[in-house]
Amino acid sequence: MEKITPRLPSGMRDFLPEELLRRQFVIERVARVFEAFGYEPLQTPVLELEETLLGKYGADAEKLIFHAQHPNGKEKLALRYDLTVPLARAFALHESKLSLPFRRYQIAPVWRAERPQRGRYREFYQCDVDCIGVEGMEADAEVISVAVMALQRLGFSDFAVKLNNRKLLTGIGLYVGLEGPPLADLYRSIDKLDKIGVDGVREELLKSGIAAEPVDRIMALVGSGAELECGYAAARARLAHFRQILSDVPLALEGLAELERVFNYLEASQVPEAMIAFDPSMVRGLGYYTGPIFEAVLLSADPEERVGSLAGGGRYDDLIGLFRKTSLPTVGVSLGIERLIVLMEKRGMYPEPLQRTVVQVLVSVFNEALRPAALRLASQLRLAGLSVEVFAGSAKLGKQLAYADKRGIPLVALLGEDELAAGVVKFKRLRDQHETVCPSAESAQQAQALLCIPQN
Amino acid sequence: MEKITPRLPSGMRDFLPEELLRRQFVIERVARVFEAFGYEPLQTPVLELEETLLGKYGADAEKLIFHAQHPNGKEKLALRYDLTVPLARAFALHESKLSLPFRRYQIAPVWRAERPQRGRYREFYQCDVDCIGVEGMEADAEVISVAVMALQRLGFSDFAVKLNNRKLLTGIGLYVGLEGPPLADLYRSIDKLDKIGVDGVREELLKSGIAAEPVDRIMALVGSGAELECGYAAARARLAHFRQILSDVPLALEGLAELERVFNYLEASQVPEAMIAFDPSMVRGLGYYTGPIFEAVLLSADPEERVGSLAGGGRYDDLIGLFRKTSLPTVGVSLGIERLIVLMEKRGMYPEPLQRTVVQVLVSVFNEALRPAALRLASQLRLAGLSVEVFAGSAKLGKQLAYADKRGIPLVALLGEDELAAGVVKFKRLRDQHETVCPSAESAQQAQALLCIPQN
Repeated sequence: MEKITPRLPSGMRDFLPEELLRRQFVIERVARVFEAFGYEPLQTPVLELEETLLGKYGADAEKLIFHAQHPNGKEKLALRYDLTVPLARAFALHESKLSLPFRRYQIAPVWRAERPQRGRYREFYQCDVDCIGVEGMEADAEVISVAVMALQRLGFSDFAVKLNNRKLLTGIGLYVGLEGPPLADLYRSIDKLDKIGVDGVREELLKSGIAAEPVDRIMALVGSGAELECGYAAARARLAHFRQILSDVPLALEGLAELERVFNYLEASQVPEAMIAFDPSMVRGLGYYTGPIFEAVLLSADPEERVGSLAGGGRYDDLIGLFRKTSLPTVGVSLGIERLIVLMEKRGMYPEPLQRTVVQVLVSVFNEALRPAALRLASQLRLAGLSVEVFAGSAKLGKQLAYADKRGIPLVALLGEDELAAGVVKFKRLRDQHETVCPSAESAQQAQALLCIPQN
Repeated sequence: MEKITPRLPSGMRDFLPEELLRRQFVIERVARVFEAFGYEPLQTPVLELEETLLGKYGADAEKLIFHAQHPNGKEKLALRYDLTVPLARAFALHESKLSLPFRRYQIAPVWRAERPQRGRYREFYQCDVDCIGVEGMEADAEVISVAVMALQRLGFSDFAVKLNNRKLLTGIGLYVGLEGPPLADLYRSIDKLDKIGVDGVREELLKSGIAAEPVDRIMALVGSGAELECGYAAARARLAHFRQILSDVPLALEGLAELERVFNYLEASQVPEAMIAFDPSMVRGLGYYTGPIFEAVLLSADPEERVGSLAGGGRYDDLIGLFRKTSLPTVGVSLGIERLIVLMEKRGMYPEPLQRTVVQVLVSVFNEALRPAALRLASQLRLAGLSVEVFAGSAKLGKQLAYADKRGIPLVALLGEDELAAGVVKFKRLRDQHETVCPSAESAQQAQALLCIPQN
């Protein structure tokens, strides 16, 4: 066969073991948090029917979908673009086998043909928890609690979750006399607050044809977005203020009452108050939200850490209705897992010692005649639960130790003719060059002790 | 938006939580075995360049490849067809960052547009371990040991690994005067032994133009394939017999010597002798093997369990050379993970109690006023590592217990007004209807004890 230059498709990555072990650490840790709140894993296929995906994400997004087919296939297929539409499709397909509420998480790759650039990939992981079937605000508070605990368990403490409600945003529009497309303009402008500032937003709103007086009223309400006031008392005070101003707009009052309930449940769930804020200027992009919306942001002074939101989500009570007769109340949150991994790498947030390899013990082999003894020792150590590599081929001691060091293997078992004759094993711990000799029968306990693995 | 009937592409599956938990149990268990032997995880992308995949699998297989593209893409892409070619591509691409030997495992889906039928899917998992860079037979013995230990750890004991060597098969051909295409015919016919029997193979060989005398010599050597004689002594005796007969065929002698070394290493690695056999009639399909080949088969009398091989692999020293100047010795084994899962389901091999849900405790909520207390209790239990669901909405006790029972949640925490006033929590274990009351502060320990979770 002809030789081929090894290449990856643009925007795609291989994960080599060292990096993959760190990614798996993150994924497993957040999965355990999701499960602690009763969220169950669900797995949908990579390929969906085109008809399932098309028309759900807007025309611009749709251009980024990868399409797939096989030579004799009649079905039009596409690689999934997110995990939310497949959830709605899968729930509707299998609901007779599921009970409500259906809490599920999925941590899996999605594909988008974005223009490749630094830190942006065409295959990347999404990490979603969603709860289907709960109308009450306890579900909204729950998914926020899940996100907070997941971020905390990864080691983040300098973040806050901003909360708002689509009903309140619509209510503010009604309050100043806006509906339909002008309301969408209002959303879009307010969404730019942190980019173009109060004056920029004011200018945009005036340009879009809203009169000066309503613009002033809007700006007075939503504020500058800069002063993020965290805490339950602050949130309740601001909600009360909004209730007064918007007392004639039932939809706004409904949104405010929902937020009040979310804050109450969050407080009972012991979500720290430094991590919670009401932010009436927070909009979020996606069109499908219908109630409370939320977004976790990093409170970091470092401009290199301005990475956008760490997590985001909200209530979207209409989506499931695309795949079944009536819709079901649904709320979800998505962790920006790729972004979190980048931050954790930058900050060195992985637990020490950093596991660079799965291997805990290298069993050395000085010559082929000694290999059977090395294999027996390896079996013995594996039975005790240790990960053991037997040196392939044979080499001088120095070379085998250098190999272990290069690979990051913490412990080397030395089994030469002398040790074999004496019925002992010598261990060398590379971190501190500590050497011990122990009877062959005790080698597993000895290795565990040297690796600081608790024995039961 | 228009309503859509929820459908899956043909041959694709959703895994609902209960089934997925069992699959994850299997995958995690074999991954731990792979790591115990020093194999590291590697992850390659789902999409590869077409040029990477085409021409590697043969024309028939190539028709089953799913192709992919995005609307403005210039690259021709395809979904991976197996994990072996991507390994060779990834190794060649990143070898400067990897050290030899490179031991890796990958447990991941692949896509093949096979005609859908019962138990055959178009997205299915492969589970591969491969070792790149070791010429010696210790690597062949190692991947066989890995497969044996993985099958044992899943609970299988009624299986055996059949070993053979491509060099021996070619040597037998040389011995009777066959080379080139007639040799391929020989392979193909011998491969059908268990289907068409000795007489069928003899007939095929005669038809293919081989004279009666060499056919008799071949049949005498390879035997009927039916009598699988396990054990190291039996294997060595048969190898010795072959050495005598084939003493004039250097390639055959080389193959026999390699097998002898493999058996020696397997014995030193304490692979049980009931699980090992030399089988000169075993061929394996894939064209790329160059040395020892092996296949684990179930020794089951149940015709419903005639599922083909549980695992298979061999040495393929030429494949990596497709992506780099010179090739590297490589040996690998693939566990038939989908098949193993089907067998484990059929035999009920999952540990009891079967975990049907991630949830360990349901905290009941009798009315909305009691929800904050329920949320506090849930936080307390989660801090102790328990997975806890808080009942959504409120309902009568009977309904909440029925819900827990339906979902398979083992323990319910009851927190009514009386319990709250007394500062206690009542637990009910559904398995035996056992009820306990404990002080609120001890609820986590109490729950762990009722769930039989060891406390440290």
